Amino acid sequence: MLYLLTKNRNKYEEIAELCKASNLELLMLPDDKIELQADTLEEVARYAAEQAYSKHNKPVIVDDSGLFIDALNGFPGVYTSYVKKTIDSKGILRLMDGVSNRAAYFKTVIAYADSDRIELFEGIVRGMIADSVHSGRDFGFDNIFIPEGYNKTFSELSIEEKNSISHRARAFNSFLSFYKGLVYK
Amino acid sequence: MLYLLTKNRNKYEEIAELCKASNLELLMLPDDKIELQADTLEEVARYAAEQAYSKHNKPVIVDDSGLFIDALNGFPGVYTSYVKKTIDSKGILRLMDGVSNRAAYFKTVIAYADSDRIELFEGIVRGMIADSVHSGRDFGFDNIFIPEGYNKTFSELSIEEKNSISHRARAFNSFLSFYKGLVYK
Repeated sequence: MLYLLTKNRNKYEEIAELCKASNLELLMLPDDKIELQADTLEEVARYAAEQAYSKHNKPVIVDDSGLFIDALNGFPGVYTSYVKKTIDSKGILRLMDGVSNRAAYFKTVIAYADSDRIELFEGIVRGMIADSVHSGRDFGFDNIFIPEGYNKTFSELSIEEKNSISHRARAFNSFLSFYKGLVYK
Repeated sequence: MLYLLTKNRNKYEEIAELCKASNLELLMLPDDKIELQADTLEEVARYAAEQAYSKHNKPVIVDDSGLFIDALNGFPGVYTSYVKKTIDSKGILRLMDGVSNRAAYFKTVIAYADSDRIELFEGIVRGMIADSVHSGRDFGFDNIFIPEGYNKTFSELSIEEKNSISHRARAFNSFLSFYKGLVYK
């Protein structure tokens, strides 16, 4: 049995769906994720998975995501949700005002922990920071991020379209390749 | 015996000095502080002290500080050092450009843990965000913070003058009052 550590049912359902497509059943483990302050998503996800495994003794995955802006030395990075809650998309645009290098990427890291191992998987989508707040879903910094190869922000794509290219989907697909090998070998 | 969890010798010496003035000996415990992502300094300091106590089994204090800006919903708050490393004082001034409410405060929380208890102590200095980056020591956001009752930034005060009014000194004095009661009773 495989568990996803999250208290967010929408997130659980989105990912359970991805797993189902690979014939894997995913259960929800609704407990707090213990999030470290650290420089990288890898450290955050690894620690949260270790703590969740040692508390529950069940194979578990934990994911962590962030937006990394080149011209801001990777800010908001690991602290993306806090920055969203405080200065929001408008604050990011202020920091990027007049900055010509708009390159940025979204990244997800998934940590898998069981009795034998901790493994990390990543998914990245490169793109650029828009000049203004775009319309569409107000989720994270989706309304100011234009993925490479598109002329719309994440917030203006349909959910299906976003999920098909998102950093989270990429990280999960990478995890699923590994996990199927583990289960079936 | 009382230990300060820090790998920073300057910080240790500054605080050991404060303790000496109260006839208390402070030892240095040079290990990593396990810092949570959380909304408050209290949660960060409490968790770090719990983890340090359960690892080392020694009475220990841990401190955590941040700058909280009213007009930015408390940003950079708990993540002050990360924000310093990435967007720095100039980034804060950009976010505050044209903002008339410049009120902000620096806060330190100290957590003390021993076999019986965890206790928290706080120290706060109110003030305002300057309009430009001032001269002086480049430490934290001292170069853009003007403490109440002064017309200079923290960075322009002498170290002694800053220490006499600082949030950290206030929090330590509050801790010392408690700790002396504990030791001498």
